[in-house]
Amino acid sequence: MMNHSETSSDKFQPMDPEDFRKQVHRTVDFIADYYKNIESYPVLSPVEPGFLLSQLPNIAPINAEPLEAVLRDVEKYIIPGLLHWVSPNFFAYFPLTTSTAGFIGEMLCSAFNALGFNWIASPAGTELEMVVMDWMANIFGLPPSFSFSGTGGGVIHSSTSEAILCTVVAARDRVLARLEPGSLSKLVAYGSDQTHSVFGKACRIAGIAPCNIRLLETSPNVKSAECSLSPVLLRRTMEDDVAAGLIPFYVCATVGTTSTTAVDPVREVAEVASNYTAWVHIDAAYAGSACICPEFRHHLDGVELVDSISISPYKWLLSHLDCCCVWVRHPDFLMKSLSLDGEYIQNSFSDSKNVVDYKDWQIGLTRRFRALRLWVILRCYGVANLQAHIRSDVELAKMFEQLVVQDPRFEVVVPRKFGLVCFRLGTRGCNSDRVDELNESLLKAVNSTGRVYMTHTKVGGAYILRFVVGVVSTEERHVAAAWDLIKEKADDLVGKLG
Amino acid sequence: MMNHSETSSDKFQPMDPEDFRKQVHRTVDFIADYYKNIESYPVLSPVEPGFLLSQLPNIAPINAEPLEAVLRDVEKYIIPGLLHWVSPNFFAYFPLTTSTAGFIGEMLCSAFNALGFNWIASPAGTELEMVVMDWMANIFGLPPSFSFSGTGGGVIHSSTSEAILCTVVAARDRVLARLEPGSLSKLVAYGSDQTHSVFGKACRIAGIAPCNIRLLETSPNVKSAECSLSPVLLRRTMEDDVAAGLIPFYVCATVGTTSTTAVDPVREVAEVASNYTAWVHIDAAYAGSACICPEFRHHLDGVELVDSISISPYKWLLSHLDCCCVWVRHPDFLMKSLSLDGEYIQNSFSDSKNVVDYKDWQIGLTRRFRALRLWVILRCYGVANLQAHIRSDVELAKMFEQLVVQDPRFEVVVPRKFGLVCFRLGTRGCNSDRVDELNESLLKAVNSTGRVYMTHTKVGGAYILRFVVGVVSTEERHVAAAWDLIKEKADDLVGKLG
Repeated sequence: MMNHSETSSDKFQPMDPEDFRKQVHRTVDFIADYYKNIESYPVLSPVEPGFLLSQLPNIAPINAEPLEAVLRDVEKYIIPGLLHWVSPNFFAYFPLTTSTAGFIGEMLCSAFNALGFNWIASPAGTELEMVVMDWMANIFGLPPSFSFSGTGGGVIHSSTSEAILCTVVAARDRVLARLEPGSLSKLVAYGSDQTHSVFGKACRIAGIAPCNIRLLETSPNVKSAECSLSPVLLRRTMEDDVAAGLIPFYVCATVGTTSTTAVDPVREVAEVASNYTAWVHIDAAYAGSACICPEFRHHLDGVELVDSISISPYKWLLSHLDCCCVWVRHPDFLMKSLSLDGEYIQNSFSDSKNVVDYKDWQIGLTRRFRALRLWVILRCYGVANLQAHIRSDVELAKMFEQLVVQDPRFEVVVPRKFGLVCFRLGTRGCNSDRVDELNESLLKAVNSTGRVYMTHTKVGGAYILRFVVGVVSTEERHVAAAWDLIKEKADDLVGKLG
Repeated sequence: MMNHSETSSDKFQPMDPEDFRKQVHRTVDFIADYYKNIESYPVLSPVEPGFLLSQLPNIAPINAEPLEAVLRDVEKYIIPGLLHWVSPNFFAYFPLTTSTAGFIGEMLCSAFNALGFNWIASPAGTELEMVVMDWMANIFGLPPSFSFSGTGGGVIHSSTSEAILCTVVAARDRVLARLEPGSLSKLVAYGSDQTHSVFGKACRIAGIAPCNIRLLETSPNVKSAECSLSPVLLRRTMEDDVAAGLIPFYVCATVGTTSTTAVDPVREVAEVASNYTAWVHIDAAYAGSACICPEFRHHLDGVELVDSISISPYKWLLSHLDCCCVWVRHPDFLMKSLSLDGEYIQNSFSDSKNVVDYKDWQIGLTRRFRALRLWVILRCYGVANLQAHIRSDVELAKMFEQLVVQDPRFEVVVPRKFGLVCFRLGTRGCNSDRVDELNESLLKAVNSTGRVYMTHTKVGGAYILRFVVGVVSTEERHVAAAWDLIKEKADDLVGKLG
């Protein structure tokens, strides 16, 4: 037992191998049972704020407790208070993917607990990340300018936020180097009104003036909802900014926006940006993963013209949290802005400049051995299975789309591209406020059953329901049951048709 | 088996509970064996850059491979290329702590894979983090102004870098709100020449002009090596900066610097900073953990005067990577700078302002359920065992210190405060360059055996060896053997005395 008083020796031994073996095996069964019983839990429990704060003691225990007591409390307090992201009935946000291989990769990462800030601190960690990032670049069809085996390189960040912040800072410093001091307030960054809000936040963190963060209008009208960044508008805005004495320095294009999976025209955006030597980043957090299938790869057309791209395999490629793959064409710019020294980490390998020190590619010094997870996933499943997995989700999303289309009370609002279906109820003979209310009520009615969990968004001001297929255990029967539930609740709200 | 072709159904099922159970149990034994055999591996293998890049295939496999093949390759390629941070013979940097409870907490985090960016996305995740951060605040003896149960609050960040960056941005925006536009270039941040270089990097990321990042000189002389920030020098520098039209806005004080575990005088620093309403942050990444023992708590004296403090339990409190606890006195300032919205995450709980949405307390949107790890550790071990663990490491460090003191060829360079001993060889009758070379050679000779791993630093320009006790499996015999090895290599270099 981990309990101090129960160890054989008097010394507190938190990492005895045989005790570890026993306790961790016990926990594996606990977790496997959780997965086995996952459908018995409400996807979102009807807990209210404060439910846990009010139940747990307000100070830490002085003495050890046995693991069984803790696992009992996980069952009693934690599981009932979770939104179950691993439930096959979870169709919200962008779902996250999990896998036995990803879990195993994460366990190994945790076991080695190697802090790979530079090469010497984790030679295998550093080089496996380089290998895996080149493998991933290859399966996404990225040009050699993004690979270590070519002229660029990749790094695993914790999030798209970190990817955008790091590239904004690199782009910022690249342009400031040729300007007079005090020019920071003139720099302008561009996205669209559909770009994820982490973009604006990253720019603000980097000291870009909030008034110089442009979120260009896409489609204000739900009926023409392509929602992608207009290269014409981008060019015009950049021209106006330059005329006003400002300096365009960064453009964030999105492949698969969060609201509707809109795809910005990468090539055209990059061509416009090149007139101002602005850095172009592609945020392909969710939809980028689909590009491992040839039939989706065209969404990255023009990627060879951009400066950086990020894709988060935890969203759709079976990796658990957290894992955002970032590739840059010119690692030097990242390193110039993000390098960090200290005598306590000085070593001859770093001095030789013949190794990659990932501390200079990210915000923090701390970094986990996340590459193991991707490596175990790629090895245990192979690219062919990953492709099958993407296609299977897309097929299920198509199935849902067809169900929606066949019911005259509903409409699919935005053309479906990947695993997301944007739809809504009751557009005939209602004013738009009423339609919004109706859909908000429908979402609430569906989610409050605990049998399904979905979210919403707004497109051109209109309230839209989002249904995303992505959890690895979701099967046809879950999608069909979700649709039945949605119909049932719609019946309650607007009555049956036909 | 995870191999697609071997699953019973035709569909690729990466998360079948029974397959999960089987494969993960197998991996637990693999990991327990790694811990059991840890002393058989060289702490740092003598690998050369490119060792792994040259051995692994340059494209990902198309087809699935069995887990056994992957684990064999972990043994063949990864383990031999690791710096073994979990080895009891690892005395480098600040060692990291691991534990069965920490590992189990991390497994549960990975199993639930809950993305807790706001309350609704992980009610239990959010509230457990609030509970645990209040527990931790209590065991560190922080005033109620840092607790949710008081008037502040805490959050788990990935790293000290994130903690410093977030508080720099909050401090920056707090002062900019009362200044005219374009004042960013006037803001000045202060640390010492011993402050970790993540401080300067965070300031640069936040757009602070590099010429306005002050690293105040501490002790240029190795013989008077307290190495702490001088409040007198801080006051004088701030006065000069104000006279020059600049604006002091942020001070980073360190409790336990990386080089030598120097402790900046928190109270005096905070009193100086208060004259300029500059934000004061305490970086207590390593040594903060010791403050759970009453006899070390005085190092945080004056903490009630600062704005924020960060302590990383992965360094010394049995938590695996990553985990940096950050407390702020005024969460509003963090939230003002770091909040982020989007229709796709809008919900009535957030709108009510009655819940904590941790996305507004950190850089990214992505966040793992790290609170589980701390909770399982505190439950399974209790505060008393954690205190015993800190004291035991400090006792081993004292033992090493005594061994050094007893050998007239060596000297302890800096007064030992925690688990780090800063020492060096051969100071009599040698010029300083020769002493530096000697110690560099000694370090290389010791590390190249693979039996021990230590690192170095410089104090006042002098090359110093660092020996830190911290890995949880380190016992007296490891410390004694390390000292014997150091003496043996010293014998080879300078001959025996005595």
